[in-house]
Amino acid sequence: MKRDAQQTAKLSKAEYKRLAEALRVKLVNAQYDLKDENTSVIILLAGNDLPGCEEFIDVLQEWVDVRYVDTRAFRLPTEEEQQHPPMWRYWQAMPRNGRIAVFYGAWIMNLVLEVEQKKIAEGELEKRLLRLSGLENLLLHDNRKVLKIWLHASEDDLKKRLKKYRKNPDSELYVGQNFEFIYKLYKRSQPVIEKLHHLLNDEIAWQWVDGSDKRTRNITIAQRILALLESDAKPANASSATKLFRPARQNYLGKVDVNSNIENKVYKEKLKQAQLRLKHTMLAAKNAGVTPILAFEGWDAAGKGGVIRRITQSISAWSYRAVPIAAPTPEEMKYHYLWRFWKHIPRAGKVLIFDRTWYGRVLVERVEGFAKEVEWQRAYEEINDFEAQLVDANCCVLKFWLHIDAEEQMKRFKQREQTEYKKYKITEEDYRNREKWQDYESAVNDMVELTSTKVAPWHLVAANDKRFARIEVMETLIRELEVFIEKAVHSRR
Amino acid sequence: MKRDAQQTAKLSKAEYKRLAEALRVKLVNAQYDLKDENTSVIILLAGNDLPGCEEFIDVLQEWVDVRYVDTRAFRLPTEEEQQHPPMWRYWQAMPRNGRIAVFYGAWIMNLVLEVEQKKIAEGELEKRLLRLSGLENLLLHDNRKVLKIWLHASEDDLKKRLKKYRKNPDSELYVGQNFEFIYKLYKRSQPVIEKLHHLLNDEIAWQWVDGSDKRTRNITIAQRILALLESDAKPANASSATKLFRPARQNYLGKVDVNSNIENKVYKEKLKQAQLRLKHTMLAAKNAGVTPILAFEGWDAAGKGGVIRRITQSISAWSYRAVPIAAPTPEEMKYHYLWRFWKHIPRAGKVLIFDRTWYGRVLVERVEGFAKEVEWQRAYEEINDFEAQLVDANCCVLKFWLHIDAEEQMKRFKQREQTEYKKYKITEEDYRNREKWQDYESAVNDMVELTSTKVAPWHLVAANDKRFARIEVMETLIRELEVFIEKAVHSRR
Repeated sequence: MKRDAQQTAKLSKAEYKRLAEALRVKLVNAQYDLKDENTSVIILLAGNDLPGCEEFIDVLQEWVDVRYVDTRAFRLPTEEEQQHPPMWRYWQAMPRNGRIAVFYGAWIMNLVLEVEQKKIAEGELEKRLLRLSGLENLLLHDNRKVLKIWLHASEDDLKKRLKKYRKNPDSELYVGQNFEFIYKLYKRSQPVIEKLHHLLNDEIAWQWVDGSDKRTRNITIAQRILALLESDAKPANASSATKLFRPARQNYLGKVDVNSNIENKVYKEKLKQAQLRLKHTMLAAKNAGVTPILAFEGWDAAGKGGVIRRITQSISAWSYRAVPIAAPTPEEMKYHYLWRFWKHIPRAGKVLIFDRTWYGRVLVERVEGFAKEVEWQRAYEEINDFEAQLVDANCCVLKFWLHIDAEEQMKRFKQREQTEYKKYKITEEDYRNREKWQDYESAVNDMVELTSTKVAPWHLVAANDKRFARIEVMETLIRELEVFIEKAVHSRR
Repeated sequence: MKRDAQQTAKLSKAEYKRLAEALRVKLVNAQYDLKDENTSVIILLAGNDLPGCEEFIDVLQEWVDVRYVDTRAFRLPTEEEQQHPPMWRYWQAMPRNGRIAVFYGAWIMNLVLEVEQKKIAEGELEKRLLRLSGLENLLLHDNRKVLKIWLHASEDDLKKRLKKYRKNPDSELYVGQNFEFIYKLYKRSQPVIEKLHHLLNDEIAWQWVDGSDKRTRNITIAQRILALLESDAKPANASSATKLFRPARQNYLGKVDVNSNIENKVYKEKLKQAQLRLKHTMLAAKNAGVTPILAFEGWDAAGKGGVIRRITQSISAWSYRAVPIAAPTPEEMKYHYLWRFWKHIPRAGKVLIFDRTWYGRVLVERVEGFAKEVEWQRAYEEINDFEAQLVDANCCVLKFWLHIDAEEQMKRFKQREQTEYKKYKITEEDYRNREKWQDYESAVNDMVELTSTKVAPWHLVAANDKRFARIEVMETLIRELEVFIEKAVHSRR
């Protein structure tokens, strides 16, 4: 929100027309090039000149090919949005490759409104700003093109327009009866905007545009959009990509006593107890507005499905969704890799279970080379940030790695081959994957070290004995969830 | 909900195991075949044996490949769902080609709940049931495979289980503290269920399954799912496909005085007045909870974009979305053709503007042969039903056809070719399309006759003079919207 420009000179009508016509050709041509690129464009349009923002949106619709532009206006969050982490609404609106999104009001004027109308607790604000710069960072690293326009009106200018408006309430076409509101908001929000300005650690700077002359405003913003479209998308700060990555210092998998086992009779008794207790814990979570998010990873044939079913047996089908994660669809490939996980995040109080997760980025995509080194290396930080956001929004993130050894896996593959009804599960690729066992081991150890955060640590579970693994997961889940619920209830008081 | 089966015999454990193992192989194989088919599967699971439904869902997750199954539970609508037409929630959950959706509670138990808890006005119920059979009809005609399972528990059976539950509240794993609720619901909902049973004009019959023996239940339902998967998807009642279609009896386009025009000075004055009035009308719509849905169709180069921009200039960008409709994406092709329009339907009180619409089905898809004859012929009825649902949900559907003649179009094409910045808009295909002018004319006349319903009539607008068309659209829009708002406010009192 720095003023990097002087109040601009007025443009003559003829000059405006000349500039506009040239711009329109270039904008449309640039849009056509964008269609085939592996990137998308996000234009944030905010500022205190809200009438100006709306006028510009209308001009833009005339100048570009609207078939490839999504315009979204962000104001106070809806009830649905309030039931999700704050960044969820932006993820829902992300443009896919080849498209332009115009986010009007985002992600600062809506925040100003939230602060100004006291929808945000004092202590929460800094976190929200942190999340925003995290989001910007992530978009930049994903080669998304982002432009942030801050359209400025001086108080004098707004005052003059208000006077004109009061004389003739129909003079401001867009704003209508909101003009009084906007002026008051301007007065009240200045301290908030100043405060945000000082707190903000933008990855992408707001570009200050003077709104006093409409023609100059239109040309200036359109030129910046064109420059963005024509630019090569490059990470602004590539060095931070590997900020977090370094190989693990310990062999975490090696420390798991993979053959831990349990007697069948004890198993049955413990399972029954755990399922009943889990039932109550899940109800308690619901009542506390806690959203359990269970993430299961593990070697092929480690028994994830069996564990998940023992858990879902304790939860009403009204309350949970189980989401199996396979290779991304062509449609999903057109977004940031976290997009397809964000879209599953449920309303507060529901249970979400992932059979395989976003950790595919640092496991299969790393080992098989589907993600570039720089991509999977920066994923650790992005994932930690993602999970921290979930935890902040009262989601209890519980991550389990089911660990078997290579012999046990071979035994299970052979068993499955002989059992007709599971035969489909084993392909040549499954056997081929075994050749990369050590690569996967390294990847798992790195993952455990780099993403075992305080708020969402990994739980490594010995799974050569399926029954042992089931009990271990359920008891850990109950224990951790109960602590989380306790904290949530406590902090609410 | 007819009882088409006797209380079933109990299955021995051994027999169950034998049947289950054979079923599992077949289910998974059938799922694999489904993946390549141009259809999807919807399984409705409802009934008064809710604990049984939940148990079966868990069994099913064990027996199928869950990667291609989406299980959704429908209970009372969320706040977000309440802000949309009642069928919207089902459209949001529709499975794409190759996938299975399990809708638990839909679309009858959630309705029972709504009635029972008086969330539905008495008079609204019949309409809702009509919509449901409309939806079933539409799914059947689209070759979707739909199975409706009504899982039955006798009152005695539920009573016994309740007694057991009261003795030991942990005995019912899934239902937990809801068991008392379910029993009471059973008692209270019988009259509602009976009533619905009499009112229902199901396109697809509910299959009554006795829930008293868990093993028999599991096998019975799974067998029916398998039979559905292995069946050829065929419209159950193909004759109804052309129920509504017959060629138009009048030449509606011919009656439009295409050269109607307006003086520039008068235009400017009228535009200003109309924009101001529209501003107030749109605010009134918002306050009344009315959702204006504007649908624009017309010949290429008829000036839709220009009209739309004159309208959006009067609406705050917070309040509207303009959605340009192009050819469906590969992803969109995997659903019923109305799906991509349903997904745009906004919350109550917002404004939605379509630049081209669902009428593509009976225009370009008909003329170019992208839709089969039987498909576009039944689309008239599906579209009327779709729009009636919108109107019922307080959406004011306003449809405009912008009419120019072939000479005017050619003139505009030539103009565009000479104007560099719009050149991209004219392709050889545009000229080729002109050869089918008469086919399109017939299609438009059929469309106007068959879809000009009382609640959503067509407005044909002379557009050889762009300015005339703009004023005509805006004045019609204002007039119709004001009448609609008046009615909405009145009916609310």
